Amino acid sequence: MTGDLDNLRVVLVATRNPLNIGAAARAMSNFGIRRLRVVNPYEVAFREARSAVGAAGLLAKAEQYESVAEAVADCRLVVGTTVAGRRELQHRLQRLDEGGLAIKRQLKTGPVALLFGSERFGLSNQELSHCHWVMRIPTREEHGSMNLGQAVAVCLYELVRGQKTAPAKIVPEKRAKTPAASGDVERLTQLLFKVLDASGYVKPRAAAATEGNLRRMLRRMQLDASDTVLWLGILRQIAWKLRANEKSGE
Amino acid sequence: MTGDLDNLRVVLVATRNPLNIGAAARAMSNFGIRRLRVVNPYEVAFREARSAVGAAGLLAKAEQYESVAEAVADCRLVVGTTVAGRRELQHRLQRLDEGGLAIKRQLKTGPVALLFGSERFGLSNQELSHCHWVMRIPTREEHGSMNLGQAVAVCLYELVRGQKTAPAKIVPEKRAKTPAASGDVERLTQLLFKVLDASGYVKPRAAAATEGNLRRMLRRMQLDASDTVLWLGILRQIAWKLRANEKSGE
Repeated sequence: MTGDLDNLRVVLVATRNPLNIGAAARAMSNFGIRRLRVVNPYEVAFREARSAVGAAGLLAKAEQYESVAEAVADCRLVVGTTVAGRRELQHRLQRLDEGGLAIKRQLKTGPVALLFGSERFGLSNQELSHCHWVMRIPTREEHGSMNLGQAVAVCLYELVRGQKTAPAKIVPEKRAKTPAASGDVERLTQLLFKVLDASGYVKPRAAAATEGNLRRMLRRMQLDASDTVLWLGILRQIAWKLRANEKSGE
Repeated sequence: MTGDLDNLRVVLVATRNPLNIGAAARAMSNFGIRRLRVVNPYEVAFREARSAVGAAGLLAKAEQYESVAEAVADCRLVVGTTVAGRRELQHRLQRLDEGGLAIKRQLKTGPVALLFGSERFGLSNQELSHCHWVMRIPTREEHGSMNLGQAVAVCLYELVRGQKTAPAKIVPEKRAKTPAASGDVERLTQLLFKVLDASGYVKPRAAAATEGNLRRMLRRMQLDASDTVLWLGILRQIAWKLRANEKSGE
């Protein structure tokens, strides 16, 4: 997939604030996407964007274009992005997760452009006319307008998520749990009962019921082997202290 | 689902830059999440964060806490977030998309806290010890560090995306458990620590590490509410007996 992602071009159109270009670059670098293109940014000095933490190299290599047409000329699929509240769209609209799937398929075969519009207005109808379809980030109708850097991060995450061999090595998910052996859990049960008996927790007439309660509770915990060892150590120490106290009090 | 999302608390811990709190608030508002909590932000005047476009109301209602323990006390599931490159984690690590599923299940039953650490260091091991598990945003190993506002946006998007076509396979709960409130589990942690300290289990120089180990172990157990009450009773009795013994031995 890393190879596929090299086919993605993130195209920022008419971005007003160079800090947002920096933020977009940073998110790209985080998720392993390298090709940034900018169309008519408001300030030409965008390469100095300070917010491009860790992505200065990517920013330095950004390609600058004077029109959307030029910026997407080599791409076989051009996808626009939008948020809630843009009702006048004349394009086919896809949900982000569905569109993401279509983009991933296309990335296997050639360059794909993903367009983000200006902070204030998004992509104009003229800019959108270069797109095959549009992806919608599922923001609320009442507050659709997203920060540009956050919108880029969310869309790129959608493209990299769920990869078995993600750009980065995934650390083993669930701590490989080895369920405790029943014998150890029973040893724990007996020790806990002994400690509680010595502490006056166990009422003589309810001893059997209490033991049953403890046994069930410890099994509900579904302890793993190493936690069981930890608990045995804890209870042995308490049992020892109780005994030591008794003796010193004798 | 909108109702479920009201159970989510986004908790920003030791955030250095108030603009990032504003950016987080904006992403929350975009995705329909309203409850923001901050723990010890570097600047107290965070409510004036200018980057909270459209989310001033949400920011004004943010709740401020002095410790992670207080900020998550009413939550039944506490999840930390991290990025690539944090190797020393002692927690169970989930992929963001898998963790998102687990969070969505839990949101149906009660409050869930989602923690984000400081810009520079992320969540400390002490802060993480309050978490049941940790979600990892799939950034590259070579450039793991994400902008805080972008990290929040990506995680929240994961929780709202694809709501119509939810993943078919939902793992059934083993039994109708009411997970313990974090405040109760923390009370249990403190009491266990006290009992172990009185028993000579805690080595003075390793006290903080031991406390962290106990906190993580108790959260791994995913105790339900009634078992937590049972454990509190057990430990109170042991604590009482240890004290009584000490006195009679004096």
